[in-house]
Amino acid sequence: MEHLLQVLLILVGIIVAAKVAGAISVRYGQPAVFGEIAIGLILGPTVLNVLDWNLFSHTASHGAGALNTLLGAADQSDSLNVSAHSLYLKGLIQDLAEIGVILLMFVAGMETDLEGMKKVGKIAFWAAMGGILLPFFGGASVSVYFGYPLYWEAIFVGTILTATSVSISAQTLMELRVLRSREGTTILGAAVIDDVLGIILLGAVTALSAVGIAEQAEAAGIGTVILIILKMSLYFLVFWFVGRRYLERWCEVIRNFPASQALLAFVLVIAFSYAWAAEYFAHLAAITGSYMAGVLFAQTRFKEEINSHIHPLTYSLFVPIFFVSIGLRANGRELGGEIDFLIIIVLLAIVTKMLGCFVGARVTGFDNLESLRVGMGMVSRGEVGLIIANVGLGRGIIAQDIFSVMVIMVLVTTMITPIMLRYAFPPVHEAYGEVFESIGQVEDKKSEDEARRERQT
Amino acid sequence: MEHLLQVLLILVGIIVAAKVAGAISVRYGQPAVFGEIAIGLILGPTVLNVLDWNLFSHTASHGAGALNTLLGAADQSDSLNVSAHSLYLKGLIQDLAEIGVILLMFVAGMETDLEGMKKVGKIAFWAAMGGILLPFFGGASVSVYFGYPLYWEAIFVGTILTATSVSISAQTLMELRVLRSREGTTILGAAVIDDVLGIILLGAVTALSAVGIAEQAEAAGIGTVILIILKMSLYFLVFWFVGRRYLERWCEVIRNFPASQALLAFVLVIAFSYAWAAEYFAHLAAITGSYMAGVLFAQTRFKEEINSHIHPLTYSLFVPIFFVSIGLRANGRELGGEIDFLIIIVLLAIVTKMLGCFVGARVTGFDNLESLRVGMGMVSRGEVGLIIANVGLGRGIIAQDIFSVMVIMVLVTTMITPIMLRYAFPPVHEAYGEVFESIGQVEDKKSEDEARRERQT
Repeated sequence: MEHLLQVLLILVGIIVAAKVAGAISVRYGQPAVFGEIAIGLILGPTVLNVLDWNLFSHTASHGAGALNTLLGAADQSDSLNVSAHSLYLKGLIQDLAEIGVILLMFVAGMETDLEGMKKVGKIAFWAAMGGILLPFFGGASVSVYFGYPLYWEAIFVGTILTATSVSISAQTLMELRVLRSREGTTILGAAVIDDVLGIILLGAVTALSAVGIAEQAEAAGIGTVILIILKMSLYFLVFWFVGRRYLERWCEVIRNFPASQALLAFVLVIAFSYAWAAEYFAHLAAITGSYMAGVLFAQTRFKEEINSHIHPLTYSLFVPIFFVSIGLRANGRELGGEIDFLIIIVLLAIVTKMLGCFVGARVTGFDNLESLRVGMGMVSRGEVGLIIANVGLGRGIIAQDIFSVMVIMVLVTTMITPIMLRYAFPPVHEAYGEVFESIGQVEDKKSEDEARRERQT
Repeated sequence: MEHLLQVLLILVGIIVAAKVAGAISVRYGQPAVFGEIAIGLILGPTVLNVLDWNLFSHTASHGAGALNTLLGAADQSDSLNVSAHSLYLKGLIQDLAEIGVILLMFVAGMETDLEGMKKVGKIAFWAAMGGILLPFFGGASVSVYFGYPLYWEAIFVGTILTATSVSISAQTLMELRVLRSREGTTILGAAVIDDVLGIILLGAVTALSAVGIAEQAEAAGIGTVILIILKMSLYFLVFWFVGRRYLERWCEVIRNFPASQALLAFVLVIAFSYAWAAEYFAHLAAITGSYMAGVLFAQTRFKEEINSHIHPLTYSLFVPIFFVSIGLRANGRELGGEIDFLIIIVLLAIVTKMLGCFVGARVTGFDNLESLRVGMGMVSRGEVGLIIANVGLGRGIIAQDIFSVMVIMVLVTTMITPIMLRYAFPPVHEAYGEVFESIGQVEDKKSEDEARRERQT
């Protein structure tokens, strides 16, 4: 089959697999993201290993002469055991997935409500703090106990355990119709704070671990650490200031720019540029930059317009590729020797997050049931945990075996959260289809209503 | 720089270059597509050769282990003179551009009005026929005269010359405020008919030339040709029937599917599947399939909804990459020896299209001025000509030198059309910004209005 046809087949396969698996997941009361990762695990080396099938490992001809040369060269090499074309396709999917994460975190940024966050106040903040401190120290300690080096593998495991997924918590709460309850608001606020602190923590850990890696050339002195913290602060200050001060004006100018989809193109350029600069200048994760770009665009009066344009792009193509690619990259067969570490980490992830949030909320004013609900609502790690694990794997901070453990941990915590919440809150008696509302879906429905209105007039 | 950062930098560069060059082009009264191709020529091997700069030819590390292996293998090969990483990036851009063409032709299909096309009737049809026959035989004859083989290089040059771009004609007519005039309607109708016939002609030529290539194994007997025509007919019948009968129902089901952006994901799956099947089963070009998928979706009551979702995806990212990549792939430096062929082909492209359409319209009822306007409005080859040339290059039917001639031909015809039309129609006295409306822009403005309405309520 020709190269282009293979690419089309893979894209069709990934989109169909993701959406169908997500919907099945929803039908059984789980968040869609669970099904999307699970189907990736099935398609990946754990079960079917689809990308290494003959169908994709060989290609009839390439439109691009350049690609031909590259693959021809790779085929000639003796050191290559797997097919060059499979490798090219894996690289392509990986690149599309990376764009997907960056867009996903931009959307998460867009959904972060700075004003609402301020009102949620003390309880949400201390619930979030408890839910960060306990998993962080718990995860790092247990990893050291299992023989992983403190710098940076154990610390990074702790960092991954601090994550909480805004989208999964929010979707579960919407499905249970308790998003606007006292606990719901606290969970959402705490999840957002957890998200922000978690990303800053990730930024610090990746920056500091980069210092560690660079010590082959020079000693990782305290001066270098301070320099990196300064660069991080400078990045946040400059890009935040520029964003707050100029983004809205630029949007106004761009909207009258004589080009099709000029505003969305501008948004993509800013999101990608912030992501690029975060990693290139400040040693932060690229997603930290696109998240900040999202927060900044949400402050402009173009928020709804941007949201309605970026959601189709993000959720129809790039994000499904990201979720499926997570499963595609994890190899469940490599878990054999790690089974006790896996079980301990999964239990630790659930218990430390629940307990930390419970204590934080209980001490600052909630009763036992309310605090328990908040703790349960924060357990899901979702895509945020995967994104952080992804960064660690990409930068070589954690190895493939830990990455696979983290994927299982995310799967279990993602799966268990809606089940726990269902029993902690009063039941809802309605068909799943009616109450299903993902964050992406809300916007989707909104523009469907617009389209319908359009047709009627 | 790390691989992901290089990818982000390239995407940002391409989007900014495309939109700015397009806007400059619009400011000087030319269609945006002219500027987007021109900037690609400047960034490509003709002038700057950006992708072979050191910035992109080497990479610090890759997120994907697979990519590392591939590039490592390619670097070891003696046969490779250019950097492996530049080649990988060119392959990536090429793949994104191919997705861009498929989406672009899907959108063109969405804009094809089957009912309106029937009403435009005889004049539009014969103008289109004249504008296909004369350029086809003219282009093929001149190519043979210049020593190119009739099968299939000369015939393919003729096929490229038959193209007319709906989007460029439509945009120019909108800017001149004559889209709804008698000539405007005829031009648009004829352009659509030209598009459909041209794509069928392209399908036939690529199918027949594939027979020619396959004759190394077996004689290209008349039986094989009939078999291919049967497969083409079967493809059109089956996929048209399935689309007309089931697409609307499927859309209804999918819209209630518990997944984010389910409808758009479904549209992408169908567009990519039709494109895949067109090439895999029927030897047609992949774009023929996505064009048909677009025509079919336009017949459903979900047309506006799909349009408002697919435009952001298409025009913000993939289509700019396609237009710029056209220029990136053409090497103007290779034109030296072909200068007389180039000049003759460009003049021929303008004269045969104008004369053919003039005769077709004049014979069936228009007066001299009206027929001349129709002829002028059909000269622009735009992205359709480039898409066909792209297919020919990808399949090895035409070589790089002819491809470069075709890019110049498209640039000149695209540039000359708005200028000719401006003098043929009464002048418009308004700022360019107010009258600028591309087809993508119309949808854009529509959903901006919706977003504004949304904000007010």
